[in-house]
Amino acid sequence: MKTIKIVKIGGNIINDEKTLNNFLAKFAQLKGPKVLVHGGGKLASELASQLNIPVTMIEGRRVTDTQTLDLITMVYAGKINKQIVAQLQAHNANAVGFTGADGNTIISTKRPAEPIDYGFAGDVVTVNPQIPTILINNEVTPVFCAITHDANGQLLNTNADTIASEIAIGLSAHFNTELYYCLEKPGVLTDVDNNDSIIEHINTKNYTQLKTNGVIFEGMLPKLDNCFHALQHNVHKVHIGNTDIIFNPTIKHTALTL
Amino acid sequence: MKTIKIVKIGGNIINDEKTLNNFLAKFAQLKGPKVLVHGGGKLASELASQLNIPVTMIEGRRVTDTQTLDLITMVYAGKINKQIVAQLQAHNANAVGFTGADGNTIISTKRPAEPIDYGFAGDVVTVNPQIPTILINNEVTPVFCAITHDANGQLLNTNADTIASEIAIGLSAHFNTELYYCLEKPGVLTDVDNNDSIIEHINTKNYTQLKTNGVIFEGMLPKLDNCFHALQHNVHKVHIGNTDIIFNPTIKHTALTL
Repeated sequence: MKTIKIVKIGGNIINDEKTLNNFLAKFAQLKGPKVLVHGGGKLASELASQLNIPVTMIEGRRVTDTQTLDLITMVYAGKINKQIVAQLQAHNANAVGFTGADGNTIISTKRPAEPIDYGFAGDVVTVNPQIPTILINNEVTPVFCAITHDANGQLLNTNADTIASEIAIGLSAHFNTELYYCLEKPGVLTDVDNNDSIIEHINTKNYTQLKTNGVIFEGMLPKLDNCFHALQHNVHKVHIGNTDIIFNPTIKHTALTL
Repeated sequence: MKTIKIVKIGGNIINDEKTLNNFLAKFAQLKGPKVLVHGGGKLASELASQLNIPVTMIEGRRVTDTQTLDLITMVYAGKINKQIVAQLQAHNANAVGFTGADGNTIISTKRPAEPIDYGFAGDVVTVNPQIPTILINNEVTPVFCAITHDANGQLLNTNADTIASEIAIGLSAHFNTELYYCLEKPGVLTDVDNNDSIIEHINTKNYTQLKTNGVIFEGMLPKLDNCFHALQHNVHKVHIGNTDIIFNPTIKHTALTL
């Protein structure tokens, strides 16, 4: 089986046009099949402010009312996704932008309103990797934004980390999948203020300890849960670090195993 | 060669959610290969107003400054395009949304600033139908919005009628192409206030007369120029009417021939 890299980038890259374009120039040169998954960055919140749409976050997650869903569909699937696709084309990497609705690729279900009503937030139910696989086999890079659909015409806001792991799982039937979560930090750290404190290996056993000891907490927990979920569902390798890890596999970072 | 229908819809369908969804439910059932091309409708202007972005139109065409380009990328490629794709999926028609940047499908060049500076407006240079063709052969309907790119990372605002004719031309190497321009009116009329005054056949000869006599004027001229351009470049059939013409070919409308 061919190896495919599934790379997730977040706000620290997307929020600055120069940083994003520098990354995309390098990503375009990366040999072999690849998929890019991007989050939304600060642009959605900025536009919400301009339009007087209130931004409500609960436990770090955006509450998505109808107005907010329209807004993020415009920002994620419109502006950010298409700018990324156009930049990749400029660097001779053929790419096609995707939401989960495109190609019926990611079907999700609206999260129950209890205990917390997140509005139009979608939890992934099914991944259909057929159309992205056809494109990948024709040397096209699918670029996913963090929007899915419920197969009944409703678009849903879905966590980009989750999309990356679910796409990686879906592609594992046809490819040897390597999943990369790119952060601002060079990996999972024992001390967030010290970039040298990288935990180089996390497995299910020491993960429990790291949680118990409070070394890993808050936003890192759902990310790591996504990593282990991917490994438990046939994703071959999962790595966390800054974008350097994609281009230089020997660089110090966090590698995950079961 | 298989027959493919390339259908362009405009503001009169897009501006009303119920009208759009009713159309999409029928379009989804349409047998055989098909492509949908959509304009922008009034939403972009409404959002521009909310964001205090001035809307400048010259001769019926939008002047696209940087802010306006961002806005239409969000509205056309984000909100409208993804709502259409999600609705088609809900009716079991597999679809993938496209700008001209996706799949490097439509490369355009920024229109010269003289005699009129339309800003980031793109005139089509090259159509690469390979990726849409692969998807069509896998029973996927490409859905195009009116945005292209210059292959150097710049997105450009491009007339949706032009995109429809250029895509139809591009697909004519592999398909027997039928191009449908859907209007609010049932065809090209001799009297805009009388829906019974349909000109049923327009060819290059009577087109010249109709222009000279002032029967056809203003916005209809570039549309008809697109029609003849398509016919001159191997598009098999071109029709103008309301959306009924797609589902009932015997209905009275305007058919074009060279």
